Amino acid sequence: MKFICSRTNLIKSINIAQRAVPVRSSMPILSCILVQAFDNGIFFQSNDMELCIETRLIGTVLETGILAIEAKMFSEIARKLPEEEVVITTNERDQVLIVSGSARFHLMGQNGDEFPGLPEITREEGISISQYSLKNIISQTIFCTLPQDQNLMLTGEYFEIDGSELRVTALDGHRIAIRRSLLNQDCGKKSVIIPGKALSEISKILTGEIDDRVTFYFNGNHVVFLWEGTTLVSNLIDGNYFNTSRMISSEYQTQMVVNRQRLISCIDRAALFVRENDKKPIIFDITDRNLNLSIETPLGAMSEDVSIAKEGRDLMIGFNPKFLMDALRAIEDEEVTMYFINAKSPCTIKDLQNSYTYLVLPVNFLR
Amino acid sequence: MKFICSRTNLIKSINIAQRAVPVRSSMPILSCILVQAFDNGIFFQSNDMELCIETRLIGTVLETGILAIEAKMFSEIARKLPEEEVVITTNERDQVLIVSGSARFHLMGQNGDEFPGLPEITREEGISISQYSLKNIISQTIFCTLPQDQNLMLTGEYFEIDGSELRVTALDGHRIAIRRSLLNQDCGKKSVIIPGKALSEISKILTGEIDDRVTFYFNGNHVVFLWEGTTLVSNLIDGNYFNTSRMISSEYQTQMVVNRQRLISCIDRAALFVRENDKKPIIFDITDRNLNLSIETPLGAMSEDVSIAKEGRDLMIGFNPKFLMDALRAIEDEEVTMYFINAKSPCTIKDLQNSYTYLVLPVNFLR
Repeated sequence: MKFICSRTNLIKSINIAQRAVPVRSSMPILSCILVQAFDNGIFFQSNDMELCIETRLIGTVLETGILAIEAKMFSEIARKLPEEEVVITTNERDQVLIVSGSARFHLMGQNGDEFPGLPEITREEGISISQYSLKNIISQTIFCTLPQDQNLMLTGEYFEIDGSELRVTALDGHRIAIRRSLLNQDCGKKSVIIPGKALSEISKILTGEIDDRVTFYFNGNHVVFLWEGTTLVSNLIDGNYFNTSRMISSEYQTQMVVNRQRLISCIDRAALFVRENDKKPIIFDITDRNLNLSIETPLGAMSEDVSIAKEGRDLMIGFNPKFLMDALRAIEDEEVTMYFINAKSPCTIKDLQNSYTYLVLPVNFLR
Repeated sequence: MKFICSRTNLIKSINIAQRAVPVRSSMPILSCILVQAFDNGIFFQSNDMELCIETRLIGTVLETGILAIEAKMFSEIARKLPEEEVVITTNERDQVLIVSGSARFHLMGQNGDEFPGLPEITREEGISISQYSLKNIISQTIFCTLPQDQNLMLTGEYFEIDGSELRVTALDGHRIAIRRSLLNQDCGKKSVIIPGKALSEISKILTGEIDDRVTFYFNGNHVVFLWEGTTLVSNLIDGNYFNTSRMISSEYQTQMVVNRQRLISCIDRAALFVRENDKKPIIFDITDRNLNLSIETPLGAMSEDVSIAKEGRDLMIGFNPKFLMDALRAIEDEEVTMYFINAKSPCTIKDLQNSYTYLVLPVNFLR
């Protein structure tokens, strides 16, 4: 195998492929990027057995071939190459030579035959969305998934397509995040549970530009994301997702409108007194025109008044500050409306267009 | 105690005082900053039993008093205060109230009586230097000290004053760093060994501006640094420092002039193949007009040519890449001159003005 490419493109392709290289694996070959030089182009593949990525490297193939190269070292070398032009050559003993300027790097590669291939994929009925939207939807919901759990459903996000609406739901037992987005065509009715890990990796690779698009396909047990020379395939999570509409009430006793940034910085100050694994809540004391926010822990106490617009009953309710914070930070509106029933029922934060709904369970408190 | 100050000044004074708050200590009081409000000003003190700092906080004292406040929490609160104006009040039960805007923080302080005071200091025959120079001298030598060692001498830096010359030496058994600097007055003949820790903390606090000055005094077993409302006192290290002039030869067999940045990036690439605790050297093969730099480890191999100007014999010599790198990075010249005797003798990097001298021991290598 022999090909020429630019350092910039090499770094870009390694960065993309690295997202599916496992940090640890019982299969040493998976710590590699599979480098394939074909007549029709150069392709990098990676695979952690849940997620696999194939991305095209722009370059000129002088001699076809396949070899697996250890990803971390490959990436470090690429980053430190002295010149923009890079020539990569391999020989029949699986040795790699990387030349750039007067610098010559020698590495041992691994035979690519054992590398698990990409699953067979049919590409039908794709759903197209701007990278900006998908990246946003993921970052605005992913914090409500658990990184690991026996109940796999809690580690994934529920993607529902209904005509031209995409609705994404995540929940972790203490809170729910729902985002709605409009698609630019009717995509029928479909629903799947996509692992949080795949979504988190894809949101790191996507450019996030409004004009760049990404298309995804549901395909048996897989979801496939496709954009600009890159294919990402992930397993899906099997099962029936929770019925969240039953968890969200539309009747409220107290409604409060508050400046979002003001509330965030106030909760941020209160959170100073909460150490990890500490369950001390912050207490909202909601009265006409005023929210008094307070906390008292062995570390100290804090209290602060925030002006609000309120409708309905006065209320005192406790929350885990982190859960409220995550939801408030995922919203872009200057003002948010929070809906309460009583001190033991969840609080809902949502906008009038229903583009977002965040639900947070309260925490019991004793005074 | 009661005083008013600005958030900006509060954060600044806490940042300075925090540098002498130990991360861990058997004396809980040392995790505090001692806050003293006197008629003549507000002073913050900290002490880790090797280093102590006193710094003045600009503010208005409404009621004098003394209290020790846990440094970490104090710092976190100061950083998150909502408004610029801050009022700090304490009561006879050692409680602290910090008010800024509508936010009120309550904390428990500790009685300041147990707090170890600043040592008694006479301020005579001070040595004045620009903060810029002192900060530079420290950063250009400190990497040659050991953080900890039975031989305390290796953990400190040797400060020699001879008339209007300051000479600072650090060595760790594998390498030596020497920096010379001119003082703007004759300061007589003095020499002391200052702990690396004190120097490293002071270089973090100094502004580094050419026009800001710092004065230091040697005072029995202490060194005192004094600038803009801040006093830093450190213990000195007792003993006779090494005779470094005997370690540095002035006779050379090979002399090489090389572009510093070019050599740094080349060593940086070679260092990719060295893992921590790995003793594999990089090998310099010096011939007329060319330096071939190469390394071979179980991770791979690398080789690169760098053009040089050379005088004297050809030479092949091995080095720990980190040691060479540290020295080269501490130099600001575009080109450096390196002097060699043979493959088993140290290499010296120095300029014609003798403003810096770096000596690095070679590493044995087998081909």
